Amino acid sequence: MVLVSTRNPLNIGASARAMANFGFSRLRVVQPYDVAFREARSAVGAAPLLQAAEDCGSVAEAVADCRLVVGTTSAGGRELQHPLRRLEYGARLIGRVLMQAPVALLFGSEKFGLSNEDLSYCHWLMRIPTTDPGLSMNLGQAVALCLWELARDPTAAEAKPERVRRAVGEQNEQITAMLIEVLGRSGYINPRTAGSTEEKIRRLVLRLDLSQHDAPVVMGMLRQVLWKLGEK
Amino acid sequence: MVLVSTRNPLNIGASARAMANFGFSRLRVVQPYDVAFREARSAVGAAPLLQAAEDCGSVAEAVADCRLVVGTTSAGGRELQHPLRRLEYGARLIGRVLMQAPVALLFGSEKFGLSNEDLSYCHWLMRIPTTDPGLSMNLGQAVALCLWELARDPTAAEAKPERVRRAVGEQNEQITAMLIEVLGRSGYINPRTAGSTEEKIRRLVLRLDLSQHDAPVVMGMLRQVLWKLGEK
Repeated sequence: MVLVSTRNPLNIGASARAMANFGFSRLRVVQPYDVAFREARSAVGAAPLLQAAEDCGSVAEAVADCRLVVGTTSAGGRELQHPLRRLEYGARLIGRVLMQAPVALLFGSEKFGLSNEDLSYCHWLMRIPTTDPGLSMNLGQAVALCLWELARDPTAAEAKPERVRRAVGEQNEQITAMLIEVLGRSGYINPRTAGSTEEKIRRLVLRLDLSQHDAPVVMGMLRQVLWKLGEK
Repeated sequence: MVLVSTRNPLNIGASARAMANFGFSRLRVVQPYDVAFREARSAVGAAPLLQAAEDCGSVAEAVADCRLVVGTTSAGGRELQHPLRRLEYGARLIGRVLMQAPVALLFGSEKFGLSNEDLSYCHWLMRIPTTDPGLSMNLGQAVALCLWELARDPTAAEAKPERVRRAVGEQNEQITAMLIEVLGRSGYINPRTAGSTEEKIRRLVLRLDLSQHDAPVVMGMLRQVLWKLGEK
Protein backbone atom coordinates (compact mmCIF):
# COMPACT_ATOMS: atom_id res chain seq x y z
CA MET A 1 0.00 0.00 0.00
CA VAL A 2 1.30 3.41 -0.93
CA LEU A 3 0.35 6.61 0.91
CA VAL A 4 1.24 9.73 -1.07
CA SER A 5 1.75 13.08 0.71
CA THR A 6 -0.36 12.15 3.71
CA ARG A 7 -0.57 14.99 6.21
CA ASN A 8 -2.37 13.66 9.25
CA PRO A 9 -0.39 11.23 11.46
CA LEU A 10 -3.67 9.74 12.71
CA ASN A 11 -4.48 8.70 9.15
CA ILE A 12 -1.09 7.07 8.65
CA GLY A 13 -1.54 5.22 11.92
CA ALA A 14 -5.11 4.20 11.10
CA SER A 15 -4.03 2.95 7.67
CA ALA A 16 -1.25 0.87 9.18
CA ARG A 17 -3.64 -0.54 11.75
CA ALA A 18 -6.13 -1.56 9.04
CA MET A 19 -3.28 -3.26 7.18
CA ALA A 20 -2.39 -5.22 10.30
CA ASN A 21 -6.08 -6.08 10.82
CA PHE A 22 -6.36 -7.62 7.38
CA GLY A 23 -2.97 -9.21 6.94
CA PHE A 24 -1.23 -6.73 4.66
CA SER A 25 2.35 -5.93 5.54
CA ARG A 26 4.15 -3.71 3.04
CA LEU A 27 3.56 -0.01 3.52
CA ARG A 28 5.33 2.63 1.45
CA VAL A 29 5.03 6.33 2.02
CA VAL A 30 5.89 8.96 -0.58
CA GLN A 31 6.88 12.41 0.64
CA PRO A 32 5.11 12.20 3.98
CA TYR A 33 5.21 15.18 6.27
CA ASP A 34 8.16 14.19 8.40
CA VAL A 35 6.61 15.17 11.70
CA ALA A 36 3.38 13.33 10.86
CA PHE A 37 5.26 10.21 9.91
CA ARG A 38 7.32 10.21 13.09
CA GLU A 39 4.21 10.70 15.19
CA ALA A 40 2.42 7.88 13.38
CA ARG A 41 5.24 5.46 14.13
CA SER A 42 4.10 5.56 17.72
CA ALA A 43 0.48 4.54 16.97
CA VAL A 44 -1.03 1.68 18.98
CA GLY A 45 -0.88 -1.78 17.44
CA ALA A 46 0.74 -0.71 14.22
CA ALA A 47 4.30 -0.26 15.41
CA PRO A 48 6.06 -3.16 13.66
CA LEU A 49 4.35 -2.43 10.37
CA LEU A 50 5.17 1.28 10.53
CA GLN A 51 8.74 0.64 11.62
CA ALA A 52 9.14 -1.40 8.45
CA ALA A 53 7.45 1.25 6.25
CA GLU A 54 9.62 2.29 3.32
CA ASP A 55 10.07 6.01 2.76
CA CYS A 56 10.16 6.60 -1.00
CA GLY A 57 11.24 9.75 -2.79
CA SER A 58 8.70 9.42 -5.58
CA VAL A 59 5.67 7.48 -6.77
CA ALA A 60 7.83 5.99 -9.51
CA GLU A 61 10.15 4.51 -6.90
CA ALA A 62 7.24 3.27 -4.77
CA VAL A 63 5.61 1.31 -7.59
CA ALA A 64 8.76 0.20 -9.42
CA ASP A 65 8.42 -3.52 -8.57
CA CYS A 66 4.63 -3.72 -8.88
CA ARG A 67 2.89 -5.51 -11.66
CA LEU A 68 -0.36 -3.54 -11.24
CA VAL A 69 -0.82 -0.01 -9.93
CA VAL A 70 -4.30 1.08 -8.85
CA GLY A 71 -5.13 4.61 -7.73
CA THR A 72 -8.02 5.46 -5.43
CA THR A 73 -10.22 8.47 -6.04
CA SER A 74 -13.43 10.03 -4.85
CA ALA A 75 -13.96 10.99 -8.50
CA GLY A 76 -15.67 14.19 -7.47
CA GLY A 77 -16.19 15.62 -10.92
CA ARG A 78 -12.58 15.66 -12.08
CA GLU A 79 -12.16 14.60 -15.65
CA LEU A 80 -10.38 11.30 -15.50
CA GLN A 81 -8.25 9.76 -18.19
CA HIS A 82 -8.40 6.31 -16.64
CA PRO A 83 -10.87 3.48 -16.42
CA LEU A 84 -12.76 3.94 -13.18
CA ARG A 85 -13.98 0.88 -11.31
CA ARG A 86 -16.25 0.42 -8.35
CA LEU A 87 -14.60 -1.02 -5.26
CA GLU A 88 -16.53 -4.33 -5.37
CA TYR A 89 -15.38 -5.06 -8.90
CA GLY A 90 -11.94 -3.49 -8.65
CA ALA A 91 -11.07 -5.50 -5.57
CA ARG A 92 -11.86 -8.72 -7.42
CA LEU A 93 -9.49 -7.77 -10.23
CA ILE A 94 -6.78 -6.84 -7.74
CA GLY A 95 -7.30 -10.10 -5.86
CA ARG A 96 -6.59 -12.12 -8.98
CA VAL A 97 -3.32 -10.33 -9.77
CA LEU A 98 -2.28 -10.33 -6.12
CA MET A 99 -2.01 -14.11 -6.16
CA GLN A 100 0.90 -13.85 -8.59
CA ALA A 101 2.62 -10.50 -8.29
CA PRO A 102 2.83 -7.38 -6.08
CA VAL A 103 0.10 -4.79 -6.57
CA ALA A 104 0.36 -1.14 -5.49
CA LEU A 105 -2.74 0.55 -4.12
CA LEU A 106 -2.27 4.33 -4.02
CA PHE A 107 -3.98 6.78 -1.70
CA GLY A 108 -3.47 10.54 -2.08
CA SER A 109 -3.43 13.35 0.43
CA GLU A 110 -6.49 14.04 2.58
CA LYS A 111 -7.11 17.36 0.91
CA PHE A 112 -6.27 16.92 -2.76
CA GLY A 113 -6.18 13.20 -3.39
CA LEU A 114 -3.74 11.96 -6.02
CA SER A 115 -2.29 14.50 -8.43
CA ASN A 116 -2.49 14.06 -12.17
CA GLU A 117 1.16 13.12 -12.13
CA ASP A 118 0.53 10.45 -9.49
CA LEU A 119 -2.39 9.15 -11.53
CA SER A 120 -0.19 8.79 -14.59
CA TYR A 121 1.48 5.81 -12.88
CA CYS A 122 -1.83 4.01 -12.44
CA HIS A 123 -3.26 1.29 -14.67
CA TRP A 124 -6.74 2.16 -13.55
CA LEU A 125 -8.65 3.84 -10.74
CA MET A 126 -10.96 2.58 -8.07
CA ARG A 127 -13.68 4.46 -6.24
CA ILE A 128 -15.83 3.67 -3.23
CA PRO A 129 -19.44 4.22 -4.25
CA THR A 130 -20.86 6.57 -1.62
CA THR A 131 -24.35 8.00 -1.35
CA ASP A 132 -23.24 11.60 -1.76
CA PRO A 133 -20.28 11.82 -4.18
CA GLY A 134 -19.62 15.38 -2.99
CA LEU A 135 -18.78 14.18 0.52
CA SER A 136 -15.39 12.51 0.48
CA MET A 137 -14.43 9.69 2.81
CA ASN A 138 -12.07 9.87 5.73
CA LEU A 139 -8.69 8.51 4.52
CA GLY A 140 -8.24 5.93 7.29
CA GLN A 141 -11.76 4.62 6.65
CA ALA A 142 -11.26 4.49 2.89
CA VAL A 143 -8.07 2.46 3.38
CA ALA A 144 -9.89 0.10 5.74
CA LEU A 145 -12.73 -0.44 3.25
CA CYS A 146 -10.39 -1.24 0.36
CA LEU A 147 -8.38 -3.73 2.39
CA TRP A 148 -11.53 -5.29 3.81
CA GLU A 149 -12.97 -5.70 0.34
CA LEU A 150 -9.79 -7.53 -0.64
CA ALA A 151 -9.87 -9.67 2.51
CA ARG A 152 -13.57 -10.43 2.72
CA ASP A 153 -14.77 -13.90 1.94
CA PRO A 154 -17.75 -13.81 -0.44
CA THR A 155 -18.71 -17.37 0.41
CA ALA A 156 -19.11 -16.39 4.06
CA ALA A 157 -22.20 -14.39 3.10
CA GLU A 158 -24.09 -17.51 2.12
CA ALA A 159 -26.68 -18.80 4.53
CA LYS A 160 -25.47 -21.54 6.78
CA PRO A 161 -27.59 -24.29 8.27
CA GLU A 162 -28.57 -23.29 11.74
CA ARG A 163 -26.44 -25.00 14.33
CA VAL A 164 -28.85 -24.63 17.21
CA ARG A 165 -30.80 -27.82 17.89
CA ARG A 166 -34.48 -27.22 18.47
CA ALA A 167 -36.58 -28.76 21.21
CA VAL A 168 -38.30 -32.02 20.34
CA GLY A 169 -42.05 -32.53 20.33
CA GLU A 170 -42.06 -34.22 23.70
CA GLN A 171 -40.41 -31.26 25.38
CA ASN A 172 -42.78 -28.84 23.72
CA GLU A 173 -45.70 -30.92 24.90
CA GLN A 174 -44.42 -30.96 28.47
CA ILE A 175 -44.00 -27.21 28.38
CA THR A 176 -47.49 -26.84 26.94
CA ALA A 177 -48.97 -29.00 29.70
CA MET A 178 -47.13 -27.09 32.40
CA LEU A 179 -48.12 -23.72 30.96
CA ILE A 180 -51.76 -24.81 30.78
CA GLU A 181 -51.54 -25.88 34.40
CA VAL A 182 -50.01 -22.57 35.46
CA LEU A 183 -52.56 -20.56 33.54
CA GLY A 184 -55.38 -22.75 34.78
CA ARG A 185 -54.38 -22.22 38.41
CA SER A 186 -53.97 -18.50 37.72
CA GLY A 187 -57.51 -18.17 36.38
CA TYR A 188 -56.35 -17.24 32.88
CA ILE A 189 -58.34 -20.05 31.29
CA ASN A 190 -62.10 -19.72 31.09
CA PRO A 191 -63.51 -23.24 31.78
CA ARG A 192 -66.15 -22.83 29.06
CA THR A 193 -63.55 -22.22 26.34
CA ALA A 194 -60.79 -24.30 27.88
CA GLY A 195 -60.42 -26.55 24.83
CA SER A 196 -59.74 -23.81 22.33
CA THR A 197 -57.54 -21.92 24.78
CA GLU A 198 -55.39 -25.00 25.23
CA GLU A 199 -54.98 -25.34 21.50
CA LYS A 200 -53.96 -21.71 21.27
CA ILE A 201 -51.39 -22.27 23.99
CA ARG A 202 -50.00 -25.34 22.23
CA ARG A 203 -49.58 -23.44 18.96
CA LEU A 204 -47.96 -20.55 20.80
CA VAL A 205 -45.40 -22.89 22.39
CA LEU A 206 -44.57 -24.36 18.99
CA ARG A 207 -44.08 -20.90 17.53
CA LEU A 208 -41.57 -20.16 20.29
CA ASP A 209 -39.43 -22.81 18.62
CA LEU A 210 -37.32 -23.29 21.72
CA SER A 211 -33.81 -24.65 21.43
CA GLN A 212 -32.64 -27.83 23.18
CA HIS A 213 -30.81 -25.53 25.51
CA ASP A 214 -33.71 -23.24 26.38
CA ALA A 215 -36.45 -25.85 26.76
CA PRO A 216 -35.24 -27.21 30.15
CA VAL A 217 -34.73 -23.63 31.37
CA VAL A 218 -38.33 -22.75 30.56
CA MET A 219 -39.50 -25.98 32.21
CA GLY A 220 -37.57 -25.05 35.33
CA MET A 221 -39.25 -21.65 35.42
CA LEU A 222 -42.70 -23.12 34.97
CA ARG A 223 -42.07 -25.78 37.60
CA GLN A 224 -41.13 -23.12 40.11
CA VAL A 225 -44.16 -20.97 39.31
CA LEU A 226 -46.38 -24.05 39.56
CA TRP A 227 -44.93 -24.89 42.92
CA LYS A 228 -45.56 -21.36 44.13
CA LEU A 229 -49.12 -21.40 42.81
CA GLY A 230 -49.80 -24.74 44.52
CA GLU A 231 -48.56 -23.44 47.83
CA LYS A 232 -51.27 -20.88 48.52
CA MET B 1 -26.62 3.23 14.73
CA VAL B 2 -25.97 3.30 18.45
CA LEU B 3 -22.64 4.32 19.98
CA VAL B 4 -22.33 3.29 23.63
CA SER B 5 -19.93 5.13 25.97
CA THR B 6 -17.69 6.35 23.18
CA ARG B 7 -14.75 8.36 24.53
CA ASN B 8 -12.92 9.79 21.55
CA PRO B 9 -14.64 12.67 19.70
CA LEU B 10 -12.70 11.75 16.54
CA ASN B 11 -14.40 8.36 16.57
CA ILE B 12 -17.86 9.86 16.98
CA GLY B 13 -17.12 12.23 14.11
CA ALA B 14 -15.67 9.48 11.92
CA SER B 15 -18.69 7.27 12.60
CA ALA B 16 -21.09 10.05 11.67
CA ARG B 17 -19.11 10.73 8.51
CA ALA B 18 -19.24 7.07 7.46
CA MET B 19 -23.00 7.13 8.05
CA ALA B 20 -23.31 10.15 5.76
CA ASN B 21 -21.08 8.41 3.19
CA PHE B 22 -23.37 5.41 3.00
CA GLY B 23 -26.77 6.98 3.43
CA PHE B 24 -27.55 6.15 7.06
CA SER B 25 -29.11 8.94 9.04
CA ARG B 26 -30.18 7.99 12.57
CA LEU B 27 -27.43 8.14 15.16
CA ARG B 28 -28.05 7.52 18.83
CA VAL B 29 -25.44 7.90 21.52
CA VAL B 30 -25.70 6.35 24.96
CA GLN B 31 -23.80 8.00 27.79
CA PRO B 32 -21.20 9.69 25.64
CA TYR B 33 -18.50 11.69 27.32
CA ASP B 34 -20.08 15.13 27.16
CA VAL B 35 -16.99 16.97 26.08
CA ALA B 36 -16.23 14.40 23.38
CA PHE B 37 -19.77 14.60 22.07
CA ARG B 38 -19.70 18.40 21.88
CA GLU B 39 -16.36 18.35 20.10
CA ALA B 40 -17.60 15.75 17.63
CA ARG B 41 -20.56 17.91 16.70
CA SER B 42 -18.11 20.22 15.00
CA ALA B 43 -16.57 17.50 12.76
CA VAL B 44 -16.29 18.21 9.03
CA GLY B 45 -19.06 16.95 6.80
CA ALA B 46 -21.06 15.29 9.51
CA ALA B 47 -22.69 18.29 11.10
CA PRO B 48 -26.38 17.76 10.16
CA LEU B 49 -26.26 14.10 11.15
CA LEU B 50 -24.56 14.83 14.46
CA GLN B 51 -26.88 17.73 15.22
CA ALA B 52 -29.75 15.29 14.87
CA ALA B 53 -28.06 12.62 17.00
CA GLU B 54 -30.25 11.48 19.87
CA ASP B 55 -28.68 11.38 23.30
CA CYS B 56 -30.13 8.36 25.13
CA GLY B 57 -29.90 7.61 28.82
CA SER B 58 -29.67 3.85 28.38
CA VAL B 59 -29.28 1.08 25.84
CA ALA B 60 -32.88 0.06 26.56
CA GLU B 61 -34.07 3.50 25.49
CA ALA B 62 -31.85 3.54 22.41
CA VAL B 63 -33.20 0.24 21.07
CA ALA B 64 -36.80 0.51 22.25
CA ASP B 65 -38.34 0.91 18.78
CA CYS B 66 -35.99 -1.51 17.01
CA ARG B 67 -37.07 -4.87 15.73
CA LEU B 68 -33.53 -6.27 15.67
CA VAL B 69 -30.59 -5.37 17.88
CA VAL B 70 -27.12 -6.43 16.78
CA GLY B 71 -24.00 -5.91 18.86
CA THR B 72 -20.52 -5.67 17.42
CA THR B 73 -17.58 -7.36 19.08
CA SER B 74 -13.99 -8.21 18.49
CA ALA B 75 -14.78 -11.46 20.35
CA GLY B 76 -11.28 -11.52 21.75
CA GLY B 77 -11.66 -14.57 23.93
CA ARG B 78 -14.62 -13.45 26.04
CA GLU B 79 -17.10 -16.19 26.58
CA LEU B 80 -20.18 -15.12 24.67
CA GLN B 81 -23.73 -16.19 25.31
CA HIS B 82 -24.91 -15.07 21.87
CA PRO B 83 -24.79 -16.37 18.33
CA LEU B 84 -21.75 -14.77 16.72
CA ARG B 85 -21.83 -14.03 12.99
CA ARG B 86 -19.22 -12.90 10.52
CA LEU B 87 -19.73 -9.46 9.02
CA GLU B 88 -20.43 -10.76 5.51
CA TYR B 89 -23.24 -13.02 6.69
CA GLY B 90 -24.54 -10.79 9.47
CA ALA B 91 -24.87 -7.80 7.16
CA ARG B 92 -27.05 -9.83 4.83
CA LEU B 93 -29.37 -10.77 7.68
CA ILE B 94 -29.52 -7.17 8.83
CA GLY B 95 -30.19 -6.00 5.29
CA ARG B 96 -33.27 -8.19 5.07
CA VAL B 97 -34.80 -6.89 8.30
CA LEU B 98 -33.81 -3.31 7.52
CA MET B 99 -36.17 -3.22 4.57
CA GLN B 100 -39.14 -3.48 6.91
CA ALA B 101 -38.23 -2.27 10.36
CA PRO B 102 -35.60 -0.30 12.27
CA VAL B 103 -32.47 -2.20 13.25
CA ALA B 104 -30.05 -1.08 15.95
CA LEU B 105 -26.34 -1.69 15.38
CA LEU B 106 -24.43 -1.26 18.65
CA PHE B 107 -20.79 -0.28 19.05
CA GLY B 108 -19.15 -0.21 22.47
CA SER B 109 -16.42 1.94 23.91
CA GLU B 110 -12.96 1.98 22.32
CA LYS B 111 -11.38 0.33 25.31
CA PHE B 112 -13.88 -2.19 26.61
CA GLY B 113 -16.39 -2.75 23.84
CA LEU B 114 -19.94 -3.55 24.89
CA SER B 115 -20.59 -4.65 28.48
CA ASN B 116 -22.42 -7.85 29.32
CA GLU B 117 -25.44 -5.77 30.23
CA ASP B 118 -25.30 -3.99 26.85
CA LEU B 119 -25.00 -7.38 25.17
CA SER B 120 -28.10 -8.70 26.92
CA TYR B 121 -30.16 -6.36 24.71
CA CYS B 122 -28.74 -7.92 21.55
CA HIS B 123 -30.37 -10.66 19.50
CA TRP B 124 -26.98 -11.68 18.18
CA LEU B 125 -23.45 -10.40 17.68
CA MET B 126 -21.40 -9.58 14.64
CA ARG B 127 -17.64 -9.63 14.29
CA ILE B 128 -15.27 -8.40 11.62
CA PRO B 129 -12.99 -11.30 10.77
CA THR B 130 -9.49 -9.91 11.11
CA THR B 131 -6.16 -11.66 10.58
CA ASP B 132 -5.01 -11.27 14.15
CA PRO B 133 -7.96 -11.57 16.54
CA GLY B 134 -5.82 -10.08 19.30
CA LEU B 135 -5.48 -6.74 17.50
CA SER B 136 -8.77 -4.87 17.70
CA MET B 137 -9.96 -2.50 15.02
CA ASN B 138 -10.14 1.26 15.22
CA LEU B 139 -13.75 2.18 16.09
CA GLY B 140 -14.27 4.63 13.21
CA GLN B 141 -12.95 2.05 10.76
CA ALA B 142 -15.09 -0.74 12.20
CA VAL B 143 -18.19 1.43 11.85
CA ALA B 144 -17.25 2.26 8.24
CA LEU B 145 -16.78 -1.43 7.37
CA CYS B 146 -20.13 -2.47 8.81
CA LEU B 147 -22.01 0.30 7.00
CA TRP B 148 -20.16 -0.40 3.78
CA GLU B 149 -21.01 -4.08 4.01
CA LEU B 150 -24.67 -3.13 4.44
CA ALA B 151 -24.49 -0.67 1.56
CA ARG B 152 -22.70 -3.00 -0.81
CA ASP B 153 -24.84 -6.09 -0.32
CA PRO B 154 -25.97 -6.91 -3.84
CA THR B 155 -28.52 -9.51 -2.81
CA ALA B 156 -30.26 -7.35 -0.21
CA ALA B 157 -32.72 -6.14 -2.85
CA GLU B 158 -33.69 -9.70 -3.76
CA ALA B 159 -34.45 -11.01 -0.31
CA LYS B 160 -38.07 -11.84 0.30
CA PRO B 161 -40.06 -9.78 2.75
CA GLU B 162 -40.71 -11.54 5.98
CA ARG B 163 -44.41 -12.15 6.42
CA VAL B 164 -44.61 -12.23 10.19
CA ARG B 165 -43.95 -8.96 11.99
CA ARG B 166 -41.78 -9.47 15.03
CA ALA B 167 -42.14 -7.79 18.41
CA VAL B 168 -40.23 -4.54 18.92
CA GLY B 169 -37.62 -3.99 21.61
CA GLU B 170 -40.04 -2.23 23.91
CA GLN B 171 -42.43 -5.20 23.99
CA ASN B 172 -39.60 -7.64 24.58
CA GLU B 173 -38.39 -5.48 27.41
CA GLN B 174 -41.85 -5.39 29.01
CA ILE B 175 -42.11 -9.15 28.75
CA THR B 176 -38.65 -9.50 30.24
CA ALA B 177 -39.58 -7.24 33.15
CA MET B 178 -42.81 -9.14 33.81
CA LEU B 179 -41.12 -12.52 33.61
CA ILE B 180 -38.44 -11.37 36.02
CA GLU B 181 -41.19 -10.22 38.39
CA VAL B 182 -43.04 -13.54 38.13
CA LEU B 183 -39.88 -15.55 38.68
CA GLY B 184 -38.79 -13.24 41.46
CA ARG B 185 -42.05 -13.73 43.34
CA SER B 186 -41.88 -17.45 42.68
CA GLY B 187 -38.47 -17.75 44.28
CA TYR B 188 -36.79 -18.81 41.01
CA ILE B 189 -34.25 -16.02 41.22
CA ASN B 190 -31.46 -16.32 43.73
CA PRO B 191 -30.92 -12.78 45.10
CA ARG B 192 -27.15 -13.28 45.07
CA THR B 193 -27.07 -13.97 41.32
CA ALA B 194 -30.08 -11.82 40.38
CA GLY B 195 -28.10 -9.65 37.92
CA SER B 196 -26.84 -12.47 35.76
CA THR B 197 -30.15 -14.32 35.98
CA GLU B 198 -31.93 -11.22 34.69
CA GLU B 199 -29.51 -10.97 31.77
CA LYS B 200 -30.12 -14.65 31.00
CA ILE B 201 -33.87 -14.05 31.06
CA ARG B 202 -33.55 -11.04 28.73
CA ARG B 203 -31.53 -13.08 26.23
CA LEU B 204 -34.01 -15.92 26.47
CA VAL B 205 -36.91 -13.57 25.66
CA LEU B 206 -35.02 -12.21 22.65
CA ARG B 207 -34.36 -15.73 21.41
CA LEU B 208 -38.08 -16.43 21.58
CA ASP B 209 -38.36 -13.82 18.80
CA LEU B 210 -42.06 -13.32 19.47
CA SER B 211 -44.31 -12.01 16.73
CA GLN B 212 -46.34 -8.81 17.03
CA HIS B 213 -49.32 -11.08 17.45
CA ASP B 214 -47.94 -13.30 20.20
CA ALA B 215 -46.26 -10.62 22.32
CA PRO B 216 -49.51 -9.22 23.79
CA VAL B 217 -50.78 -12.76 24.40
CA VAL B 218 -47.69 -13.62 26.41
CA MET B 219 -48.01 -10.34 28.31
CA GLY B 220 -51.61 -11.20 29.15
CA MET B 221 -50.54 -14.58 30.51
CA LEU B 222 -47.78 -13.08 32.60
CA ARG B 223 -50.07 -10.36 33.92
CA GLN B 224 -52.55 -12.95 35.11
CA VAL B 225 -49.89 -15.09 36.75
CA LEU B 226 -48.48 -11.99 38.41
CA TRP B 227 -51.88 -11.08 39.73
CA LYS B 228 -52.35 -14.57 41.13
CA LEU B 229 -48.92 -14.58 42.72
CA GLY B 230 -49.67 -11.23 44.32
CA GLU B 231 -52.90 -12.56 45.77
CA LYS B 232 -51.57 -15.16 48.20
